Amino acid sequence: MNKKVIIYVMGWILNIEAIFMLLPCIAALIYKETSGYWFLVVMAACGAIGLIFTHRKPENMVFYAKEGFVSVALSWIVLSFFGALPFYLSGEIPEFEDAMFEVISGFTTTGASVLPDVESLSKCMIMWRSFTHWIGGMGVLVFILSILPLAGGYNMYIMKAESPGPSVGKLVPKVRATAKILYKIYLFMTALEVILLMLGGMPFFDSLAISFGTAGTGGFGIKNNSMAFYESYYLQGIVTVFMVLFGINFNVYHLFLTRHPKEALHSEEARAYLGIIAASVLLITINIRGGFGSLFSAFHHAAFQVASIITTTGYSTVDFDLWPEFSKGILVALMFVGACAGSTGGGFKVSRIVILLKALKKELGTLIHPRSVKILKLEGKPIEHHVLRSINTFLGAYIAIFTASVLLVSLDNFDFTTNFTAVAATFNNIGPGLAGAGPSQNFSHFSPFSKYVMMFDMLAGRLEVFPMLLIFAPSTWKDS
Amino acid sequence: MNKKVIIYVMGWILNIEAIFMLLPCIAALIYKETSGYWFLVVMAACGAIGLIFTHRKPENMVFYAKEGFVSVALSWIVLSFFGALPFYLSGEIPEFEDAMFEVISGFTTTGASVLPDVESLSKCMIMWRSFTHWIGGMGVLVFILSILPLAGGYNMYIMKAESPGPSVGKLVPKVRATAKILYKIYLFMTALEVILLMLGGMPFFDSLAISFGTAGTGGFGIKNNSMAFYESYYLQGIVTVFMVLFGINFNVYHLFLTRHPKEALHSEEARAYLGIIAASVLLITINIRGGFGSLFSAFHHAAFQVASIITTTGYSTVDFDLWPEFSKGILVALMFVGACAGSTGGGFKVSRIVILLKALKKELGTLIHPRSVKILKLEGKPIEHHVLRSINTFLGAYIAIFTASVLLVSLDNFDFTTNFTAVAATFNNIGPGLAGAGPSQNFSHFSPFSKYVMMFDMLAGRLEVFPMLLIFAPSTWKDS
Repeated sequence: MNKKVIIYVMGWILNIEAIFMLLPCIAALIYKETSGYWFLVVMAACGAIGLIFTHRKPENMVFYAKEGFVSVALSWIVLSFFGALPFYLSGEIPEFEDAMFEVISGFTTTGASVLPDVESLSKCMIMWRSFTHWIGGMGVLVFILSILPLAGGYNMYIMKAESPGPSVGKLVPKVRATAKILYKIYLFMTALEVILLMLGGMPFFDSLAISFGTAGTGGFGIKNNSMAFYESYYLQGIVTVFMVLFGINFNVYHLFLTRHPKEALHSEEARAYLGIIAASVLLITINIRGGFGSLFSAFHHAAFQVASIITTTGYSTVDFDLWPEFSKGILVALMFVGACAGSTGGGFKVSRIVILLKALKKELGTLIHPRSVKILKLEGKPIEHHVLRSINTFLGAYIAIFTASVLLVSLDNFDFTTNFTAVAATFNNIGPGLAGAGPSQNFSHFSPFSKYVMMFDMLAGRLEVFPMLLIFAPSTWKDS
Repeated sequence: MNKKVIIYVMGWILNIEAIFMLLPCIAALIYKETSGYWFLVVMAACGAIGLIFTHRKPENMVFYAKEGFVSVALSWIVLSFFGALPFYLSGEIPEFEDAMFEVISGFTTTGASVLPDVESLSKCMIMWRSFTHWIGGMGVLVFILSILPLAGGYNMYIMKAESPGPSVGKLVPKVRATAKILYKIYLFMTALEVILLMLGGMPFFDSLAISFGTAGTGGFGIKNNSMAFYESYYLQGIVTVFMVLFGINFNVYHLFLTRHPKEALHSEEARAYLGIIAASVLLITINIRGGFGSLFSAFHHAAFQVASIITTTGYSTVDFDLWPEFSKGILVALMFVGACAGSTGGGFKVSRIVILLKALKKELGTLIHPRSVKILKLEGKPIEHHVLRSINTFLGAYIAIFTASVLLVSLDNFDFTTNFTAVAATFNNIGPGLAGAGPSQNFSHFSPFSKYVMMFDMLAGRLEVFPMLLIFAPSTWKDS
């Protein structure tokens, strides 16, 4: 294990975090809030430690898969620890585990909150809270990759470990250039949403915070009743559309930009993703239509909630915990489906499901015609054996962590629906679940122990399980 | 598709079913019940159709995997249809879908009941209901294989399709001899349980019915409060021990019989199975000890319920739906684990879980040391690629059917816990779930539609998914 290079990466993480904290400082200046001083204190600490760690580049920059996984896992823990300090030191979130929960929920783009009254936070804290979604959405290490040439040809391992999905495609041959393109698309789409929301009459502060939450598929509301506060169908509709857009593989946008619209429109994953959304919206609209004044109104809220859950954003316009069980069942199923690989969304990812279903169909075919030979393909390319194997391993690890988490959380003795959906909502980085973890509730009533379990789940979900498992494996730390 | 041979197999199924119905007829004679006449009527019908179908052996007895799957799936449907007729014709279960549900629940060894008052059934109906567990436990086609030489070397396909587990080991080179050995062990252990229960003062009728339910890991109670009726710790303890024994791979018993006790004691699957049971009993005992008079009492009931759920039997001595959430969570997790492959129990099977965990560990190792090469082994033998692949396919199909079933059942608009555990309890052939499907409830309040969904789930669970999926695939029925 090359520990020096890992420390060097941690240093960069802290430097970048100090820079990111400029945004809440600006908010504090504008709104003349004294709690903004705490951001200056933490920035100074981050900057000082960061500069010590990065003032000399290690001679040996060799970087393998193991170092990639470990630095990604540790980076996110370090990032969250310092990110939580302003909340805790200012006393706006008095318990440390709550501050950690809130900020891990932010960076992992979960959006589950322990705050019963979000609106009582100062503006700079609200802005930092929403900004963590945006930072976490595309990945902070990917950001670092885009601005500095970290390590020769090895940085692909970092990108692999931090980016969601079964196989990370480099858009262009160089990782650095790929990271830059991703961030450009991300910035542009976020800016577009801010403008469209402001055109609908939303204040700039709100538009920015809501767009950060949409772009990162995070879902922290800045009002106690989330997006229900903005009653305008236009505003809610814009957010619906952008949630769906941020859940699509960014590859598709890159294909559009490089003038390959045909290939973009033929993306199997995006088609499956949109198909699942359309079917879910249709079924839920039919199921809930009785509870709304008009069919359009039912459709509007069905579409918002479906987009919010499948992209793992977690905003809500209504308390869907009051919907009929069939609609709730669809939403719970969508919690596990998740968005496209290579998007900012979490969950199991549509492409993994498509590949598993294709493998299932092939196996069934083999039972009937034992001698037939078929090759599994996705997006026209054959799926390699190791990809299918790693998806299956992922599924196994996913089920194991999920089951253990539900059991541990159930020690709080809430009902099964609460335990099951609280873990589903945090592990898949969604935010709200059902019953005691529903959209009109918050996570403050869970015990500190359960909160730490769910913090682990949020990180494991965002980093796709393996990095978080590997840092607990003794053999990772053995020098070999 | 060789349709003639399938019809021939169906004929044998009906002949055997007619013979099996002799037992309830005897019960009707002893208890002088007129409803016994309906068994004579159905026996006559089965026998007549059976003899027509079997009076000439097809010239072409060639039998491939496809024919194996189709005959197994169809056999179980035919078996259930005729098995349901006595309940329906006698009017003791007035609705046809209820009679079908009850008897499918019996043959698949699920033990979920639609009867609010079991004790109002006539004795011969109770005996038939419990006997279906015993017939279904080891498999009716396996029984047929043991008594007649069906088809040269091809009958392995039938055994594969009907026997639970990822890979069926023939105990001895000949399928017929293997089937005979299995049935001998099965008969001997059932008889032993009957004797031990009678020694504890249980009437012969009850001992027989309870032993049928234990042996098949079925779980139909013959009293309204299941095994709580027999307050004796001796009787409940005997059933606990036999539930655990019937959940062990019968291979282990065969090894003992053939004087290979060392190999028998080293069975990885049996060890994992007993380890899971021990850990679960320990955790639940600690969790529930407050609710019982003594620690031993808590241990006794924890052991009974754990054995009942992991072996997918489904008897109960207490209403575990009233237990703390942590204990209930463990029971729900055990519902999916299931018993050992090659036993009479259902569920996902311990060996599949052991193999998946080993594959997971191997993959994690590969992430740290990409060049290491390890071979997966179970019981000392390497696991072939196709076995691992088919487990993964099984897991995919399992999750897909499970999700679809929960959604369809949720149309009844019961709560999530009820829907989730009702499907878990039927698909894994257990019986009781939690909440509205809990041990003090029954399945009568579900809609006919939900009942049909769960009938499919019970059959799919018992036959390990693929046969039931294949009979719905159009390409199965194409001549090729």
